[in-house]
Formats: sequence, structure tokens, C-alpha cells
Amino acid sequence: MKKVLVILGPNLNMVGIREKNVYGTQTSESINKDIKSYAENNDFECEIFQSNHEGDLIDKIHTVQGNYDAVIINAGALTHYSYALRDAIACFDIPFIEVHMSNIHAREEFRHTSVISPVCKGQICGFGKNVYMLAFNALKELI
Amino acid sequence: MKKVLVILGPNLNMVGIREKNVYGTQTSESINKDIKSYAENNDFECEIFQSNHEGDLIDKIHTVQGNYDAVIINAGALTHYSYALRDAIACFDIPFIEVHMSNIHAREEFRHTSVISPVCKGQICGFGKNVYMLAFNALKELI
Amino acid sequence: MKKVLVILGPNLNMVGIREKNVYGTQTSESINKDIKSYAENNDFECEIFQSNHEGDLIDKIHTVQGNYDAVIINAGALTHYSYALRDAIACFDIPFIEVHMSNIHAREEFRHTSVISPVCKGQICGFGKNVYMLAFNALKELI
Amino acid sequence: MKKVLVILGPNLNMVGIREKNVYGTQTSESINKDIKSYAENNDFECEIFQSNHEGDLIDKIHTVQGNYDAVIINAGALTHYSYALRDAIACFDIPFIEVHMSNIHAREEFRHTSVISPVCKGQICGFGKNVYMLAFNALKELI
Amino acid sequence: MKKVLVILGPNLNMVGIREKNVYGTQTSESINKDIKSYAENNDFECEIFQSNHEGDLIDKIHTVQGNYDAVIINAGALTHYSYALRDAIACFDIPFIEVHMSNIHAREEFRHTSVISPVCKGQICGFGKNVYMLAFNALKELI
Amino acid sequence: MKKVLVILGPNLNMVGIREKNVYGTQTSESINKDIKSYAENNDFECEIFQSNHEGDLIDKIHTVQGNYDAVIINAGALTHYSYALRDAIACFDIPFIEVHMSNIHAREEFRHTSVISPVCKGQICGFGKNVYMLAFNALKELI
Amino acid sequence: MKKVLVILGPNLNMVGIREKNVYGTQTSESINKDIKSYAENNDFECEIFQSNHEGDLIDKIHTVQGNYDAVIINAGALTHYSYALRDAIACFDIPFIEVHMSNIHAREEFRHTSVISPVCKGQICGFGKNVYMLAFNALKELI
Amino acid sequence: MKKVLVILGPNLNMVGIREKNVYGTQTSESINKDIKSYAENNDFECEIFQSNHEGDLIDKIHTVQGNYDAVIINAGALTHYSYALRDAIACFDIPFIEVHMSNIHAREEFRHTSVISPVCKGQICGFGKNVYMLAFNALKELI
Amino acid sequence: MKKVLVILGPNLNMVGIREKNVYGTQTSESINKDIKSYAENNDFECEIFQSNHEGDLIDKIHTVQGNYDAVIINAGALTHYSYALRDAIACFDIPFIEVHMSNIHAREEFRHTSVISPVCKGQICGFGKNVYMLAFNALKELI
Amino acid sequence: MKKVLVILGPNLNMVGIREKNVYGTQTSESINKDIKSYAENNDFECEIFQSNHEGDLIDKIHTVQGNYDAVIINAGALTHYSYALRDAIACFDIPFIEVHMSNIHAREEFRHTSVISPVCKGQICGFGKNVYMLAFNALKELI
Amino acid sequence: MKKVLVILGPNLNMVGIREKNVYGTQTSESINKDIKSYAENNDFECEIFQSNHEGDLIDKIHTVQGNYDAVIINAGALTHYSYALRDAIACFDIPFIEVHMSNIHAREEFRHTSVISPVCKGQICGFGKNVYMLAFNALKELI
Amino acid sequence: MKKVLVILGPNLNMVGIREKNVYGTQTSESINKDIKSYAENNDFECEIFQSNHEGDLIDKIHTVQGNYDAVIINAGALTHYSYALRDAIACFDIPFIEVHMSNIHAREEFRHTSVISPVCKGQICGFGKNVYMLAFNALKELI
Repeated sequence: MKKVLVILGPNLNMVGIREKNVYGTQTSESINKDIKSYAENNDFECEIFQSNHEGDLIDKIHTVQGNYDAVIINAGALTHYSYALRDAIACFDIPFIEVHMSNIHAREEFRHTSVISPVCKGQICGFGKNVYMLAFNALKELI
Repeated sequence: MKKVLVILGPNLNMVGIREKNVYGTQTSESINKDIKSYAENNDFECEIFQSNHEGDLIDKIHTVQGNYDAVIINAGALTHYSYALRDAIACFDIPFIEVHMSNIHAREEFRHTSVISPVCKGQICGFGKNVYMLAFNALKELI
Repeated sequence: MKKVLVILGPNLNMVGIREKNVYGTQTSESINKDIKSYAENNDFECEIFQSNHEGDLIDKIHTVQGNYDAVIINAGALTHYSYALRDAIACFDIPFIEVHMSNIHAREEFRHTSVISPVCKGQICGFGKNVYMLAFNALKELI
Repeated sequence: MKKVLVILGPNLNMVGIREKNVYGTQTSESINKDIKSYAENNDFECEIFQSNHEGDLIDKIHTVQGNYDAVIINAGALTHYSYALRDAIACFDIPFIEVHMSNIHAREEFRHTSVISPVCKGQICGFGKNVYMLAFNALKELI
Repeated sequence: MKKVLVILGPNLNMVGIREKNVYGTQTSESINKDIKSYAENNDFECEIFQSNHEGDLIDKIHTVQGNYDAVIINAGALTHYSYALRDAIACFDIPFIEVHMSNIHAREEFRHTSVISPVCKGQICGFGKNVYMLAFNALKELI
Repeated sequence: MKKVLVILGPNLNMVGIREKNVYGTQTSESINKDIKSYAENNDFECEIFQSNHEGDLIDKIHTVQGNYDAVIINAGALTHYSYALRDAIACFDIPFIEVHMSNIHAREEFRHTSVISPVCKGQICGFGKNVYMLAFNALKELI
Repeated sequence: MKKVLVILGPNLNMVGIREKNVYGTQTSESINKDIKSYAENNDFECEIFQSNHEGDLIDKIHTVQGNYDAVIINAGALTHYSYALRDAIACFDIPFIEVHMSNIHAREEFRHTSVISPVCKGQICGFGKNVYMLAFNALKELI
Repeated sequence: MKKVLVILGPNLNMVGIREKNVYGTQTSESINKDIKSYAENNDFECEIFQSNHEGDLIDKIHTVQGNYDAVIINAGALTHYSYALRDAIACFDIPFIEVHMSNIHAREEFRHTSVISPVCKGQICGFGKNVYMLAFNALKELI
Repeated sequence: MKKVLVILGPNLNMVGIREKNVYGTQTSESINKDIKSYAENNDFECEIFQSNHEGDLIDKIHTVQGNYDAVIINAGALTHYSYALRDAIACFDIPFIEVHMSNIHAREEFRHTSVISPVCKGQICGFGKNVYMLAFNALKELI
Repeated sequence: MKKVLVILGPNLNMVGIREKNVYGTQTSESINKDIKSYAENNDFECEIFQSNHEGDLIDKIHTVQGNYDAVIINAGALTHYSYALRDAIACFDIPFIEVHMSNIHAREEFRHTSVISPVCKGQICGFGKNVYMLAFNALKELI
Repeated sequence: MKKVLVILGPNLNMVGIREKNVYGTQTSESINKDIKSYAENNDFECEIFQSNHEGDLIDKIHTVQGNYDAVIINAGALTHYSYALRDAIACFDIPFIEVHMSNIHAREEFRHTSVISPVCKGQICGFGKNVYMLAFNALKELI
Repeated sequence: MKKVLVILGPNLNMVGIREKNVYGTQTSESINKDIKSYAENNDFECEIFQSNHEGDLIDKIHTVQGNYDAVIINAGALTHYSYALRDAIACFDIPFIEVHMSNIHAREEFRHTSVISPVCKGQICGFGKNVYMLAFNALKELI
């Protein structure tokens, strides 16, 4: 069974509480359960790791070699400036899929640029929590 | 059964022939068949429309009201400058999903900007022909 | 009697249907009738040509010599990038008047620049369908 | 009878004297008379106020509430940088119509941007003194 | 009694030691005492939290709901690039007041832009340690 | 008793009348009274000078030497382009405090830059009329 | 005998009629005859295709494989923004030579950038109709 | 005897008082006397006009026709943004000479651009009060 | 014996594993040993501190006063955006030497700018692990 | 017989030695011989002048009046910044043809701009040594 | 007697021959004589040095210490990019006066920036050959 | 014994005389002696070549093949704009090491960009004359 790491960046623990007009009202915990169920139903082993610390995210990414077959990453606002995260991703050959719950290209100017895109396999955004499920679907063809 | 229009812009008829290092060797016709099969297997009625003419694409979009429940659009290079296409999409309330076979954010600078993103529901890119299938999956939750 | 060509670019056939908060609810057909009535009442012979195809618009403009005394043009979103349209207009000495139903300078940044302005006689924008009537008024002094 | 204020900014008292290749040879005084005649013939009460002082123009605008039904404004070069004028216009709900005798979009780069456009109803430019008459025509539909 | 959280970002523990020409010679500890005294004398309950870790600051902000009535934040240099901090602040409805001991608009170009300003209530800068006291004064009217 | 000059720039006489969603409904006259009361209660002698004329504001600033101990300045929209005002402020050694009722950093792009900030002591913005009172508080420590 | 396709973009059918100061007075038809004669005299089989429609130009380019040994392309104003045309050219391995009758680098700023240059073999511009003949000369060494 | 108008813009009445490190300690009044003496000794009739009001400067410029043979203008900080002043200068054919006491090209970035330069005959800057005398010298050859 | 702190930023623990075409195959541990040997052989006491956490790096820098005579810093990708790191370095008077194993000026555009350079003594880049040894050599002359 | 000067700028003496993937392996000497043969066979008298010194190139250009009928210039990298070369070319009325062996528009960004283009007759680039021969062909029609 | 070096950069030997509409018809030699006469009549010893070689100009500047009291420099087009010339000027404490015969601020955009201005005493431009005479006048007050 | 060419660009002969606050007071001659001693003591044969002429520097670089094993280059201000120098360096496979005595990244904006960096092995800057010695150290590992 393929093992997938789901990485969630800053403030994604606040989904369902924060900016409900953008992210809806389902809580992060509840969404995480849905992700896990979906993964299992689709024959993936799934671990979810959330942190508000850029460094923790990088440390976690450094562990992927041999432990995971792929990574689904929603880097939150770090997407837009964390070249350190980008370099961490670039260390590994397994596929990283970039996801965003909102359509970042339809929001503020600064959210249009992702510094991690050039080192990710692809990007899925704008479908709410469903972006995680779609990423698993994408992985079916990739790993 | 939900009806979905798949719109393919300039040069997408050349996939499989053109720039194989970017798009792979499966021909456009063959991919279209795969899209249709996938759609049917997932209970969608699917029509595919390809044109190299911005005007034809706009004319086609103008027919969606009442005829389709959603649109999956790969606008090719028009993505990067066709504000006319953008305005056509903005006319309708049904969801438009923007897809690209390659990860446009990892290619030349001019491909990083999509002028149609702000009027689409979401974006899926970088997974080859699979972006169409993922868009259908995304639609399951939307329509 | 002076003959005037009214050229309408992409998506202007959707006025009244599309983005009603911007363009109002009167349909394109109905507006066209009003334009024609107004023209006739003001002693102009008037032809209206709409197309979503940049090429058709250029082809049409290429026929103006000897056939029309002036052109009123609402190029829709092509206003913002179609240098080909600009070059077509620059071919002829009769006056072209640029009109826009909405105040393009008060909308998104990309709509603030018109690439056809430098080859048009003047610009009228922001008064809804009335911009066409005002253009006829402007022509009274010009031709 | 509707009352309209025509506001003329810096250097517009010099029309007919200055840059005749741009503005023609009819003097400002003579044009003002034509504007007044036109207004009266079209059932508007019309007052013309010209000043080279940004502050005077703002002071005058501050008097519009209850005294005028609309304003036609040719702000001269202040158009391109006077955010103070913009804020003055934004104070009131009656329509302001922005006019320019020359086609500002066909002249020097710095004249392409109007900082007052976003708070005006619409813009008419490029038709010489006739822009004032066209603005009155536009007002017929607005007030 | 209203409860206020004072958040201090990177390097603010070094005030009094570092760049004395900019920040003066009073140590951070001593300033914190002054802040607390001032808060108490003005009937606020006050907690001060300093960290050099963006993640810790975000974690702390995530606790404000129900625990504090307002936040005074000096984000240090994170002010200029931490969109993650911005998103954390945007999660909550209580007022955040942005403060800076130096006048950031009078220093290096990169310090002129604050990415957190658009989600804060207001900004106070340039008055040394007094900016904290002024923020408490501002809160008197807000909470 | 310290003497403070409060300078108000263009359109600030319209507060309470204009853009109420931004500035509230209390009139300028009423706010001025509150400022004066506050000043007196805090042992300041206070003069308020409002003008819509850049030149008048500069003339007034030229009188500060020997007549005032400090200046509180809300330059209105001149904040964003009046280098002449900036040079006027730079002539004197007494502290100038820049205030804005709204949070200028959270509004339109053009309002994010203040050309007078580099020659002012500090900036307070976003707290409505209270910014004036906070400025007096700031002055207590400065003069 | 080598077969060469000459592609002419928007408004090039108007040469000789339009902007004579830039393009001279020889008509497009007459120039085309000269091109054909020159080609034949130099042992090339030559087909000329002109269209004002981006889509037609792309459709035509899609036919080159196996039918032509090289393409000479004057894309008119599409040169400056048609990424769709660029992608069409990039589909094929035969040489495309970019030509312009005027020296585009000596005209308006927007004409200095060619989005098709990076996928063409070389560029020849500024020699009037002679650029086509020079392109045939260049092809002698290439095919 | 040739008549020359010397126009001094905002804050130039403060020379000798303000920013002495930039402008020296000789007062404006004293410099004006030196200018007048120099003019007379060189057979010029000289009038000096200083104002902090852009509008007054424009009004004054509007009087030059027939009254002066040339203008020497130090527009102060208006140099950098007053397009209204530029348009005023452009009204007349007599030579305007732009002067600045400091070397504006060696100071802050914003002072490097003069919006009035394109309509002036020439520029002299960086020699303190001597720039006025040099301008008179320049006029000897021009009028 | 002089004491030197070597600070290694995000992802530098992955050298030898990651992007071997850029950084070579020697592991970080092995390089660290070489650095220590070299330091000792050149009479330096050397401590190496690596972290992927911006906050940890800042905390560590805050300890330098009195404990180290100099710092050699390879900030990894934080080099390009961490103004917080910059401010931390600016707190201290001992020399900081900026090093990079690759020639950052020959890589992606975003790596050409170092926000910490202005507060470092000098920069050495492009010589692989040897940059650390060269930094020790540089320190021989500095401390 | 018409006399043509071929000017070769910096590093063009190294062709055949340097960057062979860009310029091929034929040496500069050998190419020069081919150019001379071609010129003679086409009834041109031809002189070739190469220098790595901007000043020498300018000195040489200053001799063209009366001595040459035209100039073919490959300015090497000076193309991109030598405004002095541009001014030298602008001194003379005989045609200058700009050539580049590689397609400069398909290489690094900085090579896309030619500061000499606006003062040259036309540009030929991308055909290796053949660009010189094509320039002679172009001259047949020009002189 | 004060000794002044007049340095003339690239193409200034062509004045009178080149671009007569900009520089007039008097030859460089003749102008140089006028400069020398003027200098002598005003009690200056004057040497004129012209070169088209940036390096020669720098070499010459390196000789000024002890040999000249001041330098008048017209650097021609090197003005706009030669940072090497700038550094040469910055080596010395004697005054350098920057002159240009044409008003560089009224010509092409690239001529508006002078990279040597920040290290020169002042600038005089736009008065033809008279700029040299004016520079001598300026020196009377400086040395 | 390895042979190294040290190339010094414009104004580096003035070190010790010029801008002593930046470069110190040791003369260029004396530094050159120190470089030679250091090279010899480290078993390098060393030649130093200084010129203020871009062309001479390029000519010299063209001789390196077979004559030197490496080059240490301090290009002075040419660093920032001489693409010709860049192309000269790119001709050869031996390592070029870019050095600067001052920390160019901590000085004026224009000094932050080096156009030769992308074709050099690495960069060392900010350590005064010691940068040359460090470059020799770097070469020990490279050649």
C-alpha cells in the first residue's frame, strides 16, 4: 500500500474557524478525518502533518526519503515566499502535489505567485477540501 | 445525467505530435477517447470541442446556458492573454474548471499568469491527460 | 446621408444576459434597435456588425474605404491587447470613435489601457448604451 | 431646469492661445459662450468655473450639494496626479463627467492615467470643445 | 477588566542592546515592565509574548479567541514578508493594532511595506517605547 | 503651556458628510471641538488650521518657528504626492506627527505611500478621530 | 525542389494601401507576385497564405509537416502577443524565419518584443518587401 | 532692455532658514537682492515672483506674453510632479530656463525627475544661488 | 584562540543527499568534519550550528556577544527573504561573513539578491565546501 | 563599385574558438575570407574591421563619410548597452545594417534589446555567418 | 591663473557634422576655439581633451590631481551608462561640472539618467556650445 | 607551477588615492606587490594586468588559452554593465574568480548586479586587498 504524507502549513489548523467565507465552516479536524477516510478507501496509507512553523515543515519533509511514496502539500501563506520550503522539496525525487482550498489565482495579487510550484509535480486549487481528494486521485496515476 | 463541455484551445489538437517532451506521445484523438470513456464511466455526458480560433471558443462558450452543467477548459496559450475569453466565461454562472496538462507554473515566465483564473472555479495542472479526469472528479462535488 | 459602421467586439452579443450588474438588463438586440433608430432620427445610415472573432472584425474594418464615412467601435476585451485591431484601424483616414458601455478606467487594472486609443479620434465610456448615441453626436461635428 | 456646473482646471483659460496644434484657435471665452448657449438650448442651467488653483477647484466642488444636479469636469493636468481632487469628487453622489478636449490616451504616457476616473461616471475625450456638448447630452439620460 | 496581548516579534528582545541609535538604550526587559505598569494603571490586564519564531507567534495568535480582547503587535522584520502572520491575524475579529518603535516609513525602502497592515485596525510608529502606551490608549476607544 | 498646531489638508472639512462608511458621521466641526477639548484637558494650547490649498498649508507651516512646539498633520490626499509639503515640513526642527483617520495601508494602493513620512517623527492611523488625541498623547513624551 | 510556405498575418493584405509612409505604395498583390517570381527564379516552390485570423494562421501552420520544407512568417501585429501562434510554430522542426517589412525595433515600444522569436530560426526586418527575398536566400543555406 | 521674470516655487522663501546644509545660510531676501543687482549690472530688467501656491505660479506664468522676454524658473518640489505647471510653461514661446540651487540629480531618487524639463530650454543646477546668475548669462545668448 | 560560530540555514543538513549536481555528493556531516579540522589546523575554535528554523538561527545569533569572535553564515534560502535574520545580524559588531557553496549569482533570478549582505562584512560563494575554509582565511585578517 | 565596411565588435575575433555550440567551429579568419569572397562575387568592395574597443569602433565609424556606401555592423555585446556607438551611427546618412550570427531574441533576456536598432536600417540575425551575406543582398536594393 | 580641463566624450568631435538639427552647424574645432578664447578672456588656462574611448577619458581624469583646478565634462552618451567614468570622477576632490549641449531631459528616455551626476558639482544643459562658457562662469564662484 | 592572471579594471590603479574610506590607504602598487608575494609564497606564478580600457581587458582575456591556468578578475565598475567583458570570459574553460575589495552588495543599488557573475566560478568580496589572497586560496582547490 502506497504511503502518502499530507503536509499542512500555517493557519490551516484554523480552517472552519477562520475566514469562513473563503474556507467554509467544516473544521480542520473534521476535514482531516475525511481526508483519511478517503485515502483509506482508495488504498492509500495516509499521514497528516500540520504546523505553523516553517522549520517544522522542512524538518518533516527531510524525512520523506524511504518513508513515503508521495507528498500532498498545502503550504498556506508560506507558498508565496518560503524559498526554504522550496529547497526542501527540491531535495527529493518523489512527487509533491501542491494544493490550495481556495483558488489562489482569483484572490489578492500576492497569492498569485507560488514559489514552490516550480519544484512540484502539479497544482490543484479552488475546490475546498476536495483538493486533497483530487490529489490522491492524481497520485493513483503517478505512483 | 450531468452534461459537461470540454473546451480545448489552440494547438491542443497537436498533442502527441508536438513537443513530446512536454506533452507525451499519446495523440489528441486518443486522449479525447479516454476522456469520453472516463466521463461515461463516471456518469457524465461529455462533449469535446477543440478550436484554434479564439472566436470559435467564445461562440461555443456562449451556448452553454441550459445546454451544459459545467465546463472544463484548457485554453492553451490563450490562457495568458485572451481577456475576451475571460469575459465570455464571466457571462455564465455554471462552474468552469481550468486545466493544463503541463505545470504552467514551472515553465516560462509568461505561462505563470492566467487571465481566465479569476473567473474560473479552480485550476488543475501538471498531471498530463489526467487533468481532465481530475476535473470530472472535481465536478462530482460541484454539480 | 452619412454612413456609419458600428463595430461590436467579443461578448457584446451577450449584453443584457451577461454581467447585468455592469451592463444592465436590456438585451443586445434591443440596444441595437435603439442605436439604429437613433441613427436614423439623426440622419445617419447605420450598419451594426458584431463578431467574437478578431479576424472578422479586422476583415470588416478593411472594407470601410469608400463604404462608410466613420466607424464607432466597441472592441470589447480586444481593446486591451489586440494590436492587430489597432493596425487595422490605422489603415484608414476616416474617424474611428472608441466607445465602452462601462467606465473602463474605473474597473480592473487591465481594462485601464486601450491599445486602440492612439489610433482613434476620441473615446466615450461609462454611459451604458448611450455611448453609441453620444458617438453619433460626436460624428455630427466630425463628418 | 437641471443645473450643471462646468469645472475647468489649470491652463484651460489659455485654450486658443496655447498649443494651438492641440487645442485649436478658438479662445476659451468664446468656447465658454458656446457651452452656455448649448446648455440653454438643451434646457440646462449652466455655470462655468475655471481656476488654476487645485484648492479653488476643491472648494468649488464642496459647494455642489443641493446647488447642482451634475458636474462636467475638465481637470486639465491635475487629472494625472491630484488625488485631492479625486477625494473631493468622491464626497458627492451627483454624477461627475470627466472630459478632455484632446484624446489623452493618444498623447504622452503620463496623460494616459486619470486619477479621477474611478470616481467619475464616465469619460469623453478627443472631440475638442464638443466634449462639453456631448457631456450635456450624456447628462440628459443621467439626471 | 479588558485583557490585552502584546506580541513582540524577532529581535525585539534585543532592544536596548542592538542598534541603539535606532531604538535607544533602555532594555527590552525594562520596557516590558513599563508597558505592564502602564497597562495596569490604565485598567488593562496585559500579557507580553516575545518570540523570534514566526511559528510561535502564529501559535500564540491562534489562542486569542475568548482569551484576549485585543492584540498589540510589533512583528519586527516579519512585518515586511510574513504572509503567514497576516493570515493568522485575519482569523480573528478582535482588533489588532500594529506598532513599530521606529518610523518604518523613514527607513530603508523594504521597511515601508507592511504585509500585516491590511488586516490590522491601525498603525502607530515612530515614538519609541511609547508606541505601546499609545496603542493602549487607542484600545480604550475600541474595546 | 505647550502650543500645538493641528493642520488638516484637502477635504477634511467634509468629514462626516463625505464617504461616511470610511470616516463616520461626526462632522468636522464637531470633531474639531473634541480635539480642542481634549487638548485643553491635557494642558495643550491648540490651534486647528484646515485648507484645501496646498499653498495655504505650506504658508501656515512656514509660521511654526517660535509660535508652536509641535505640529499634528493630517495632509489628506496631499500625503501621497505633495513633495512641496514635505519640503515645508523639512524646514523645521519641531516634531511633526503624521495622522490619518483611516488605515491608509489597508485602502487603495496609491494611499500606501506617504511622501511626508520620511520627514515626520511618527505616524498614527486607523483610529478615526482618535488619531488626533493619540498624537497629543505622543507629544507629551516628545515636547 | 524545396517547398516554402509564406505566411502573412493580419493587415498585411493592406500593404500599399495602409500606412504608406511605413510600408510604401506597392500593393500586397503586386508584392506577392514579386515574391513568387523570386522564389521560382531561385528554385523554390512557394505558396503564400494570408489571413487576418489568428486561428486560420495556426490551422495553416498545423499542415506544414510533410508538405513544406520551411516557413517564412510575417505575423503582423500578432508578433507581439500571440503565444498561441508561438506554440503552433514550436510544434514543428522545420525552420521558421521571422520577417517584418519595417524595422520593428525602431518603432513603438510594443513592437520591440516578438513572442515568436524564441521559436524561430532567425529574424530579418527593415528592408521592405525585400525581407521575403532575403528569407529565401537564408533558406538556401538551411534546407 | 530685456525683461526677465524669475519665478520661485514652494519653500524657496525659506532658503537660508531651512536645510542649511543643502542651501547655505544666506536668506532668500538677501539672495533676491543679489539676483536683482546681477541682472541690472548685466542690463536686464528683472522681476522676482515667489509663491508657495501652484495656482499662483501658473497665474503668473499666464501673464508673460508681451510682458517678459524670458523666464528663469526654480519650481521647488513642484518640479517633480506638477504637470499643471508644465502645461502652463508649454503655452508660451519665450525661453524658460529651469534652475535648482542644489544638484537634484545627486539627491533623493524622486528629485531626479523633472516634469517641466521637456518644455524648458535648458537646466542649470547645483551651484547654489549662482544658478540664477548663470541663467542670466545663458539668456544673453538666447534673447 | 579565536572562537568562530558557523551557522548553517535551512536544508544545508541535506547537502550530499539533495541536488547533487549543484552541491556534490559529500554529506553535510562529512563536510562539517572537514570544516572543524580546517578550523583547528588554523588555530580557530569552531562551533557549527545548523537549523531549518529561522527562529532558531536568530536565537543562536543572539548569543554571539562575548561568546564568539566572528560568525560564518550560510543562511540557505533564507538569504533571499529573511529580514528578521538580517536584523539579528545587525545587532552585533563582530564580523559576519556570508558564504554560499554555489555561485548564487549564476542561478535563478531570486537567488541573486541577498537581504543579509548589507549587514555582513563580505561574501564568498561558488567554491563548494571550500567557501567555509576561505571564510576562516578571511577571518585571519579581520579578528 | 560600391564600397562596404563590415564592422565587428568585441569577441567576434574569437568566433570558432569560443562558445562553439552557439557560433559553430569555423574560425573568424575563415569566415572573414568567405565574406570577402562573397562580396567580390557580388560586385562589392569590402573592408572588414574588428576591434574589442568601443572607442576604436566609433573612431572607425567616424571615417565612413565619403569612404563607404554602407556599413554592415555586428556590434557584439556592445549592441546591448553602447549608446556611444548608437550616437556614432546616428551621425551618418548611409545605411547601417545590424547583424548577429545567433538569434539574439532567443537567448538571454539582456540580449533581446539592441540600443543601436533605432538608428539602423534593418536587422538580420540567427543565420550564422550567412547573416553577412544576407546583409550584402539587402544592400543591393538599398545602395 | 586657474587651470581647467575640458573633457569631451564620444562623438563630440562630430558636432557640426552630425545631427545638425540637435547640435547646430558650427564644427567641433570651431567651438573648441571659442571655448579657449572665452576661457582666456576670463582668466582661465584651458585644455580641451576629446576622445571616443572610455578608457582614455578615465586615464586623463586620473591626471587631474595637482594639474588642474577643475574639470568641465561633457561625457556624451557615456553619461548614461559608464559607471567606470563615474568612479574615476569620484577619485578626486576638485569640482567636476557636467555639461550637455542639448537638453538631455527633453530627449529620449534613456538620456534622462546621468550616472555621473551624483559625483559632479552641478549640471548645465540645453544651451548649445554656451554650456561650456556657463561652466566657466560657474567655476569663477567655485575655485 | 600554476600560472594565474590577475586582471584589474578601471580605476583600480587609483586604490589608496581614491575614496580612502572605501578602499583604505595602501596604494595599488603596494597591494600588487603583496599579491605577488602571496602568490609566490603559495607556489603560483602570477601576472597582474591593470587597464582602464574595456577593450584592453578583453584583448588580454583573449590571450589566456594555454598561457594561464586561471584568472582572478576585479573588473571595477565594468562589473555592472560590460556584457562585452562577460562574453570574453565565456570564451574560455579555465576558472575565472570574480573579486571586489568592497562588499558590492552593501553599497549603491547599481553595484548589486554583476553581469559577469554568471560566467565566473565564484565571487569573493568585502575583505579589502585580502580578496586577492583568498582567490588564490580558492584556486588551490580548483586547478
